[in-house]
Amino acid sequence: MVLFNAAQSTQKTVNVALIGPGGVGSCVLEQLSKLSQFKLISISNSKATYFNPSGIPFHSAKADLSKATPKSIEKELIPQLSQHQPCIFIDNTSSDAVASLYPVALSHGVHVVTPNKVGFSASLSLFNHIRDASAASGAYAYKESTVGAGLPVISTLETLLKTGDKVTKIEGVLSGTMSYLFNTFSKPGTNDDILFSKLVSDARDQGYTEPHPASDLSGSDVARKLAILSRLVPGLENRLEEGVHSVDVESLIPPGLDGDTTPEEFLSGLKHHDAHYESLRKTASDANSVLRYVGVVDTADGTVKCGLETYPASHPLASLSGSDNIFLFHTQRYGTRPLIVQGAGAGSDVTAMGVVGDCISIAERV
Amino acid sequence: MVLFNAAQSTQKTVNVALIGPGGVGSCVLEQLSKLSQFKLISISNSKATYFNPSGIPFHSAKADLSKATPKSIEKELIPQLSQHQPCIFIDNTSSDAVASLYPVALSHGVHVVTPNKVGFSASLSLFNHIRDASAASGAYAYKESTVGAGLPVISTLETLLKTGDKVTKIEGVLSGTMSYLFNTFSKPGTNDDILFSKLVSDARDQGYTEPHPASDLSGSDVARKLAILSRLVPGLENRLEEGVHSVDVESLIPPGLDGDTTPEEFLSGLKHHDAHYESLRKTASDANSVLRYVGVVDTADGTVKCGLETYPASHPLASLSGSDNIFLFHTQRYGTRPLIVQGAGAGSDVTAMGVVGDCISIAERV
Repeated sequence: MVLFNAAQSTQKTVNVALIGPGGVGSCVLEQLSKLSQFKLISISNSKATYFNPSGIPFHSAKADLSKATPKSIEKELIPQLSQHQPCIFIDNTSSDAVASLYPVALSHGVHVVTPNKVGFSASLSLFNHIRDASAASGAYAYKESTVGAGLPVISTLETLLKTGDKVTKIEGVLSGTMSYLFNTFSKPGTNDDILFSKLVSDARDQGYTEPHPASDLSGSDVARKLAILSRLVPGLENRLEEGVHSVDVESLIPPGLDGDTTPEEFLSGLKHHDAHYESLRKTASDANSVLRYVGVVDTADGTVKCGLETYPASHPLASLSGSDNIFLFHTQRYGTRPLIVQGAGAGSDVTAMGVVGDCISIAERV
Repeated sequence: MVLFNAAQSTQKTVNVALIGPGGVGSCVLEQLSKLSQFKLISISNSKATYFNPSGIPFHSAKADLSKATPKSIEKELIPQLSQHQPCIFIDNTSSDAVASLYPVALSHGVHVVTPNKVGFSASLSLFNHIRDASAASGAYAYKESTVGAGLPVISTLETLLKTGDKVTKIEGVLSGTMSYLFNTFSKPGTNDDILFSKLVSDARDQGYTEPHPASDLSGSDVARKLAILSRLVPGLENRLEEGVHSVDVESLIPPGLDGDTTPEEFLSGLKHHDAHYESLRKTASDANSVLRYVGVVDTADGTVKCGLETYPASHPLASLSGSDNIFLFHTQRYGTRPLIVQGAGAGSDVTAMGVVGDCISIAERV
């Protein structure tokens, strides 16, 4: 919303500590390197940390990890960061252990920015600790890229709510993999002659799924995002005691394949369910509809659920294509026609954009 | 992007001066009344101002206009506001005269928030004065609701740009009226048997157009929004010397009807062009395509234009319905699949949401 970033020229330097220098982390470093107000003072991988309050050049940061030494993030790094405020702790991991330290960072006045869904979709207890620590110290905990990567999802929801709108329902396709699978399998109009198991197998070969496709078909990634969104909605903050585990999830892992399997065993077993999916597809198609794996947060009855649903061919969810995510915000103010945000919801560069956008927001506020 | 607005409890009071207490202004007052950090200290209509630095209750503000007295906004009000900082000057008018005062307000350190397109879509000279005054004083000039009302359009574009993405093209349906007319006239699949002039006439009767439909069909509203967007895009800042008047606009006002006409004369004259529109529609339909009145900002060749275009039935612009706006951001980072924002782009309540969202952003930054 800024027309001219008038304050930028006089903006104070904001220190950054980056945990997790992988795909997203590398893109975050690249994007931050173009922004003069940020100074990298620490970089950590899963084993060690290189801390240098004089500043670490963004472009040599990953090489500088060779100088890293083992350091407790909780006992050593965070207390050190608190001596160099304003400072942002960027967690680019998907680690439970790192997420559990957000309350510690926030209590020390260190801001947290992360695409890691764990901290906000785990137990209500951790979520409340994060909230309380943030409220007590005034440090921010930002997480735009936990849902829809760089798409303006959380910021849009928060603007709706802060300006007094009532959100009645959020629905959407929240997983790039689920999007790709069903956009390809079930199209408005004529469908291609493809078996569901073959589609999943091909998608895996092309890198559209996790190494084990069961991770995607379980729906747990969608459930995590729903947990994060629902906790922002008034009346639903405390709905999910166990976070992702309290979401009503329809898993697409067939019975009998829900134990330990290799990816090959899983894909082979999935063939026995092709007739089931073909039947679902035909029923939908006969009704001029399509299948989509959707997540729903419904404030009317407190529902937070995900599963395979049928939508008419004219519905915005039906015209989705590729592996795009789509989010429909149904609100009192927008009435019968939802506010829609759509686009790539995964990928290192767009995820990093969400992270860096959050860092800029903090820099504008401190 | 804020998870917990930790700072809110300690946030300083932000004073607000509201110009234009009409439809949008009333909704702005209503929405601001729920937010404890804002204090209304001035309200003006086109004739007079009621200024009370002790605070004016939001709910009685319009009634308090009975106490208003003539006051020069430039010579009296703005200097007074500058004594009560932080202060936001909210312009809910569509007035050239008020827009021309933004540099004065900003120079006095008074922030500007507005849905008024004029200031940012007029001459490059005024635009540069606004930019320079903002940069010099550090006061913000925010305008999310000038394009797409409450939809996150400008904020999304700015996040893309600030995080280093390259915008290659912005295209979309930027007018609710144009959206309604062509979504109704030209649908994917079978079209209804309706004449274009009858559709425009019916739309006017239902309040979907301005009192004189030529205002909508001229394309100038779309051109204004394009001017605002294009000036945010690197390389195009100085492209439009005369703002809206430098945009390449295809007007849908037929030759011969572009002079002074009454609405009735205009609609009657439009009937002579029904065959033309029917022909365009049939050509599109025969190619499994639809007609849409789109605006385009193309960075490759510096094009800023709007006009009637043909899109395949599978394109996101084709599945638009109602009077929704849609914005497609084509960027280097998002590649072949644009980031899309869609929804109601007009209406007092959603426009006010954009205004109040901007006010909250300023309150979080001061």
